[in-house]
Amino acid sequence: MLGIDDSPFTRKDEKVLVVGVVWRSSLVEGVLSTYVERDGFDSTEKLLRMIKKSKFYSQIRLIVMHGVTLAGFNIVDIKKLSEALSIPVIGVTKRKPRAREVRNALKNFADWKRRVELIDSSGKACKFGNVYAQLAGIGVADVGRFLSSFEGMPEPVRLAHIIGSGIVRGESHGRI
Amino acid sequence: MLGIDDSPFTRKDEKVLVVGVVWRSSLVEGVLSTYVERDGFDSTEKLLRMIKKSKFYSQIRLIVMHGVTLAGFNIVDIKKLSEALSIPVIGVTKRKPRAREVRNALKNFADWKRRVELIDSSGKACKFGNVYAQLAGIGVADVGRFLSSFEGMPEPVRLAHIIGSGIVRGESHGRI
Repeated sequence: MLGIDDSPFTRKDEKVLVVGVVWRSSLVEGVLSTYVERDGFDSTEKLLRMIKKSKFYSQIRLIVMHGVTLAGFNIVDIKKLSEALSIPVIGVTKRKPRAREVRNALKNFADWKRRVELIDSSGKACKFGNVYAQLAGIGVADVGRFLSSFEGMPEPVRLAHIIGSGIVRGESHGRI
Repeated sequence: MLGIDDSPFTRKDEKVLVVGVVWRSSLVEGVLSTYVERDGFDSTEKLLRMIKKSKFYSQIRLIVMHGVTLAGFNIVDIKKLSEALSIPVIGVTKRKPRAREVRNALKNFADWKRRVELIDSSGKACKFGNVYAQLAGIGVADVGRFLSSFEGMPEPVRLAHIIGSGIVRGESHGRI
């Protein structure tokens, strides 16, 4: 499994660190990283590149992201990502994604239509235990089975979060 | 426990990323990071600062480093580190530290005497199972018990290595 999350950033940062944790048999097998533009459009492409060129590519059976956006509103096209890699992708959050609030925030961008289309294509979030997930390339039953093996956020996503904030801020902060 | 390792670097890099993994009950509880000068003298001071200001400081009972040098020949004064923090420090390597070769390498530096003194102060490496360790603030029996709970390199040190190389190179490489 590959767990993915972004790192803390400020309005001054143009590029934001994204961390991937390769997880096998309850151990960290490797760490991947890339940079994406804050509020940009390159996240899908950057993740594709990061994963395709990795020696771990062939062993990754599932990609689990923290939500479906990185670095602000750099929205990941999880369908495209899943199809291009032939790997299921799920975006997991603890809080229910608030579609209306996201739409309103997106309207601050000149190119909001493109962003709304992207976010809509990731589908509605379904509730699984105490988390919410958006899915691509995988069915609800399989996701339910997978998520039930973790208490809340899957461990490699939690680790990607801790690593990103520990590297960028000098010490990890916050829970996801 | 805090596991520490540095990251890959080249002759062009002046600063080298150092990663600390806070490990409790077989889980990553946090990640710390700092930067030290390649072949510099600031590693002891930077580690002291990184740990002292951390919210994890009070819970760290043991510091385990990959060897006693970071970023080339930026030698950590493990005695000073241990005394200043009141935490035992051990430097673990898989291969036996080759004192004579290190000394010869150090002689390329104008300030080699200071470096030799530093490296000498870390004491001789003792063999524990299939690793070697230099100790400060802890006895041989306690180190033996601790190291016997891991197969080779303690897990948080392995993780610090994987994180450092994954962040700096985009994908983790190599074993320690």
